[in-house]
Amino acid sequence: MASNSFGSLFRITTWGESHGPAIGVVIDGCPAGLPLSEEDIQPMLDRRAPGVSSLTTPRKEQDKVQILSGVFEGVTTGAPISLIIWNKDGKSGSYNPVRHLLKPGHANFTYLAKYGVFDHRGSGRASGRETACRVAAGAVALKILTLCSVRIIAYVKRIGEIELSHVVEQDPELLKAQVTASPVSCPDPETSGSMVSLIETVRNEKDSVGGVIECRAFGLPAGLGDPIYEKIEATLAKGVLSIPAAKAVEFGAGFSSCRMRGSEHNDPFVKDSSGKIVTETNMAGGTLGGITTGMPLVFSAGFKPTSSIEKAQRTVDTSGEEKEFTLPEGSRHDPCIVLRAVPVIEAMTALCLVDALLLNRTSTVSLLSSKSSVH
Amino acid sequence: MASNSFGSLFRITTWGESHGPAIGVVIDGCPAGLPLSEEDIQPMLDRRAPGVSSLTTPRKEQDKVQILSGVFEGVTTGAPISLIIWNKDGKSGSYNPVRHLLKPGHANFTYLAKYGVFDHRGSGRASGRETACRVAAGAVALKILTLCSVRIIAYVKRIGEIELSHVVEQDPELLKAQVTASPVSCPDPETSGSMVSLIETVRNEKDSVGGVIECRAFGLPAGLGDPIYEKIEATLAKGVLSIPAAKAVEFGAGFSSCRMRGSEHNDPFVKDSSGKIVTETNMAGGTLGGITTGMPLVFSAGFKPTSSIEKAQRTVDTSGEEKEFTLPEGSRHDPCIVLRAVPVIEAMTALCLVDALLLNRTSTVSLLSSKSSVH
Amino acid sequence: MASNSFGSLFRITTWGESHGPAIGVVIDGCPAGLPLSEEDIQPMLDRRAPGVSSLTTPRKEQDKVQILSGVFEGVTTGAPISLIIWNKDGKSGSYNPVRHLLKPGHANFTYLAKYGVFDHRGSGRASGRETACRVAAGAVALKILTLCSVRIIAYVKRIGEIELSHVVEQDPELLKAQVTASPVSCPDPETSGSMVSLIETVRNEKDSVGGVIECRAFGLPAGLGDPIYEKIEATLAKGVLSIPAAKAVEFGAGFSSCRMRGSEHNDPFVKDSSGKIVTETNMAGGTLGGITTGMPLVFSAGFKPTSSIEKAQRTVDTSGEEKEFTLPEGSRHDPCIVLRAVPVIEAMTALCLVDALLLNRTSTVSLLSSKSSVH
Amino acid sequence: MASNSFGSLFRITTWGESHGPAIGVVIDGCPAGLPLSEEDIQPMLDRRAPGVSSLTTPRKEQDKVQILSGVFEGVTTGAPISLIIWNKDGKSGSYNPVRHLLKPGHANFTYLAKYGVFDHRGSGRASGRETACRVAAGAVALKILTLCSVRIIAYVKRIGEIELSHVVEQDPELLKAQVTASPVSCPDPETSGSMVSLIETVRNEKDSVGGVIECRAFGLPAGLGDPIYEKIEATLAKGVLSIPAAKAVEFGAGFSSCRMRGSEHNDPFVKDSSGKIVTETNMAGGTLGGITTGMPLVFSAGFKPTSSIEKAQRTVDTSGEEKEFTLPEGSRHDPCIVLRAVPVIEAMTALCLVDALLLNRTSTVSLLSSKSSVH
Repeated sequence: MASNSFGSLFRITTWGESHGPAIGVVIDGCPAGLPLSEEDIQPMLDRRAPGVSSLTTPRKEQDKVQILSGVFEGVTTGAPISLIIWNKDGKSGSYNPVRHLLKPGHANFTYLAKYGVFDHRGSGRASGRETACRVAAGAVALKILTLCSVRIIAYVKRIGEIELSHVVEQDPELLKAQVTASPVSCPDPETSGSMVSLIETVRNEKDSVGGVIECRAFGLPAGLGDPIYEKIEATLAKGVLSIPAAKAVEFGAGFSSCRMRGSEHNDPFVKDSSGKIVTETNMAGGTLGGITTGMPLVFSAGFKPTSSIEKAQRTVDTSGEEKEFTLPEGSRHDPCIVLRAVPVIEAMTALCLVDALLLNRTSTVSLLSSKSSVH
Repeated sequence: MASNSFGSLFRITTWGESHGPAIGVVIDGCPAGLPLSEEDIQPMLDRRAPGVSSLTTPRKEQDKVQILSGVFEGVTTGAPISLIIWNKDGKSGSYNPVRHLLKPGHANFTYLAKYGVFDHRGSGRASGRETACRVAAGAVALKILTLCSVRIIAYVKRIGEIELSHVVEQDPELLKAQVTASPVSCPDPETSGSMVSLIETVRNEKDSVGGVIECRAFGLPAGLGDPIYEKIEATLAKGVLSIPAAKAVEFGAGFSSCRMRGSEHNDPFVKDSSGKIVTETNMAGGTLGGITTGMPLVFSAGFKPTSSIEKAQRTVDTSGEEKEFTLPEGSRHDPCIVLRAVPVIEAMTALCLVDALLLNRTSTVSLLSSKSSVH
Repeated sequence: MASNSFGSLFRITTWGESHGPAIGVVIDGCPAGLPLSEEDIQPMLDRRAPGVSSLTTPRKEQDKVQILSGVFEGVTTGAPISLIIWNKDGKSGSYNPVRHLLKPGHANFTYLAKYGVFDHRGSGRASGRETACRVAAGAVALKILTLCSVRIIAYVKRIGEIELSHVVEQDPELLKAQVTASPVSCPDPETSGSMVSLIETVRNEKDSVGGVIECRAFGLPAGLGDPIYEKIEATLAKGVLSIPAAKAVEFGAGFSSCRMRGSEHNDPFVKDSSGKIVTETNMAGGTLGGITTGMPLVFSAGFKPTSSIEKAQRTVDTSGEEKEFTLPEGSRHDPCIVLRAVPVIEAMTALCLVDALLLNRTSTVSLLSSKSSVH
Repeated sequence: MASNSFGSLFRITTWGESHGPAIGVVIDGCPAGLPLSEEDIQPMLDRRAPGVSSLTTPRKEQDKVQILSGVFEGVTTGAPISLIIWNKDGKSGSYNPVRHLLKPGHANFTYLAKYGVFDHRGSGRASGRETACRVAAGAVALKILTLCSVRIIAYVKRIGEIELSHVVEQDPELLKAQVTASPVSCPDPETSGSMVSLIETVRNEKDSVGGVIECRAFGLPAGLGDPIYEKIEATLAKGVLSIPAAKAVEFGAGFSSCRMRGSEHNDPFVKDSSGKIVTETNMAGGTLGGITTGMPLVFSAGFKPTSSIEKAQRTVDTSGEEKEFTLPEGSRHDPCIVLRAVPVIEAMTALCLVDALLLNRTSTVSLLSSKSSVH
């Protein structure tokens, strides 16, 4: 239990069910002095919102975020920041008929095994809706990272059998523009088009499809992450695998590195034109020993196909009797949840990196005994 | 900081450098009443030890574990269990000549960036030697799991381009026997042979090679893991990615699930011959919503090739001047670190699962208000 | 930072400022299966509310609590319970004139030193208003304790120079009735009357007065609390000293024990009429080695006089210039904050004890490997 | 469980039983770059050691500390610091005869209730011997505080009925000299003499006596401590009440403040001769809102009389049968444990303050986005 919090010094606690009155998040540990308003959060939340294109669920939530605490005269005070999003389009009644069926690929079986009770309305707490809270908190973290000149960009690398095969743009601004231009957040227009076609096909087949998101963080200093159990890959992997439908994560060359020789994989150290020590290649994905090298942090996350599909499925009810499970009429789902997971990946990355940045302020005695006063 | 601990209720804290006087681990939260002696721990430690075959580093550590606290008259008391392993075969002097070179694929660059100081002898704290402590603690966790009828078996699925293509044996005892029979912990004798050849080739080329370990946990009850941020995949992913050289992890169908349709991936619920509700297939790898289903937990971890190779490599020194890096004469390394990571994967899995089992004792009011006394 | 949470397994996170739109608390780790509604929480909140008698501040907050998550069909689900209380009677404007004065006994100086920014309206986050959230969460904890037959009763033992000198009633029901009958929560009617007079005198003098609250927990099993750093006294002391205005805490004979001999203080073990092992006296206050003995847990908390007083006080402004500080006209304060701290002490005690009860479910292997299923 | 750690960023984990082979502590989170050797730790450990005067137990432990990790070439590396102290003078056999008796004032009853098993030899884990580990870790924390110009001094204020009535010296160096000159760590020679007499009397009566330790921290910056649940008083109270035999703690005027009026207790803010804002008095004991003001931090801790006394005591055995309990011949105890708790109080204070200093490095955005590099 006590499993609804993420992070150490910059720590979020989320709450709320899919069809309850509201969802929300409390951010504890946001440093004081950060200019912050709802306008800093809403745009990122809008990117995750359902109903933004024909490729996502038609559920229409406005998902308007409200700051209830922690900001005074436009600036964070060091007090916990409470963000709330009211649920408006619940339609919870429509889920009743299938209440006692075990939904294939869903959490109702396991929640019932654990708790003996389950809020089945829209999957309750197990709903992907919880990720809206991560995105809201992530927007605050991203604002801090911007102050530190760090840029995070996630994009879709694969949908089903369609994979991005182009070399990814190295310039953050250009890459961001490419991603924003695509309805499926894929930086290559041609691949993007194929992905759109595939998702439409899958939707027509009343089915769903999985995919892969890649994420890059630019502008990181060397030295972030903590040795042994708080390696940057370890905390990020935890963050990624805590996202509903995420089933895999790899850093740098990842599973491909398993096929390599050490002489291929080891990135040689060189001095760049500005005199800075960098690595010539970046097979490692921006970390060594679990600590950032200053090269871009690169990782990919694999998502299974959306569990909710319109096709009828075999199952049993809670008493073990065989049943056919069909989504209730009018229920809404995404044929490819990967699209909406892009800002969630960015949010989890931002949360991890801000935490690492804060922790890094305590790494040496020279930082601690510094006589420079705060203000 | 404070990054040398893993786990919540069953919590380990490891300490010690590769070439210091000793390494060790403190286990806090081990339940009282567990029969325990060094004999329960040593065999698993021996499986991780170097020098056990021609395929691993010739460094000869006896790695004898000693219990310093927490056990009284052969039984755990609830007090912290302190385990110590003395370092015997250090040879730290031989590493001095390359002290100021940045070692490709190693942590000295990032540790220096973070701390301004680095114990370079055998990579100090960043050495894989730290994993001996995980294995020792994992053996204690495994003893608890055995009481709960849970069995964990890891094996090598890939070395470089050689991949296990056979269907894996479903019976834990048979599978364990197959794995134990192989010098590379691969359950198929033919694949095992090819892997041995490849590792010998790579060693002769003064190079190294990566690989993939798969792990299965049998006999788990449904209900382990905690929703949202402490999903069993999330905590396990953190545990796996905290292992040196680990770069990727996937659960169940993992990255393959990204290519699937929902109708392929969703595991249908059925009642088995004993009347228990199970899933017909196990694409999910034994979890739904981050909580165990009672099906075998299945995941794979990808490891990069060992960073230490005998081949000369380009690099720079700490001042940025170009240098060639060659391992000091007589230094020892594994051509394929994957082999020795097998018990480490089992240990991290055991640590996560015991933690989840303990947490699960607090999930419902009925457990809390139970009048049944402890003894 | 991350300092707005309390508890380990039953963990609360509070948020909100005195004059923001709302305050609230998220309870993470409440076991599933607990019947719960607003009606379980509101009465305890009403006991803390201002304006309930002439002895407290006339600020009129209805302090209506609303459950936003974690309860489904009247029962807790294991999901986080979000409780919100809207602020209705803020009047924040009236505090502006004294914004730059350092308020004697208040937190504005130290918050400014730490954060460089301070929400001065009604002391913002440093306001005692935050304790309403503790009381709301404490009411949930108390409901669990009731299931476990534990009863917590706090009462006023001293106001200024007036001290309760009677022996305290040993029967929980009778004691509770005595406390409830007193406008100052003092179980002796005569002492209670003197306390009322004193508080009225102090109010007329535009001053404030401190006091002592004693708290007893009946019906605890032996074995709660964890050795060394999570002793029941240690966690409770932390909880008590985190309450605004609390400056002291003592367990059992407390500071009086410092004057005793061991032969006086050691409580002899005896077998009671029912055959249960108890202690004949209870100098220890219900614990030995930081773990409950099964005797009533007894402790006292000392509170300084309310910092806000109507009398003019010497101070300086943030630039160091001498000023006179007078509360803004119409501002409201309690002449004796001790009265309203009684339910807060009960809440903190309940939170600590539920946490200890949950942790205690993980203390032995026999509990862990128990085959008894959850449901 | 997991209750053997203290602190957040500077986190200690202690292990070991009174009569096991060794005791030890792992410090995780010590910043890199601190010069450290055994010589920095041993003197403080010697102050806690038994057998140093006729007033303490004649048990002769050399208590030699050894650093096993975390220091390289005389400087901390950021890796965990493992400290070990071997037990040399155990004599565990002599305790066997009273194994099944419940010892008045001791933890064997409660440990048995909790765990079903107890290492009875010298009280095992419940022994005050564990505090040697706190003192060793505290010496490291004190070294950091010295770098930050913070000085901590604890002294004995009361033994039984003898209380220090003099005004305490305000100059840290002079105060320290007074304390060091006294065999009972009391800064006034005359009171010190009376305390010595009382302790000798008590010893001759085969009894024990309690007392009070006061502690002051000089040179603290304003701004340490975190709001709400990590107030400096809250974390310190937890630290103090986790010390064996500690039963009470008070900050500043403490319980005396309960008798005061607000106009007496509120410390006026003034500008001192150097232009710094201070408080004219220090009733608050150096904190407001749980955060340091920059005035000396002042608190007192109350200790019960040593539980082990030579006098015969009534008790029962584990089956409830009435018995007389007499300490085994040759067993050793302190007539007044307070004397040896003085360095333990200093250690716990140092641990709390270093943690607060580290946390304070993350309080504002300006600290986070500071471009100043680490080295």
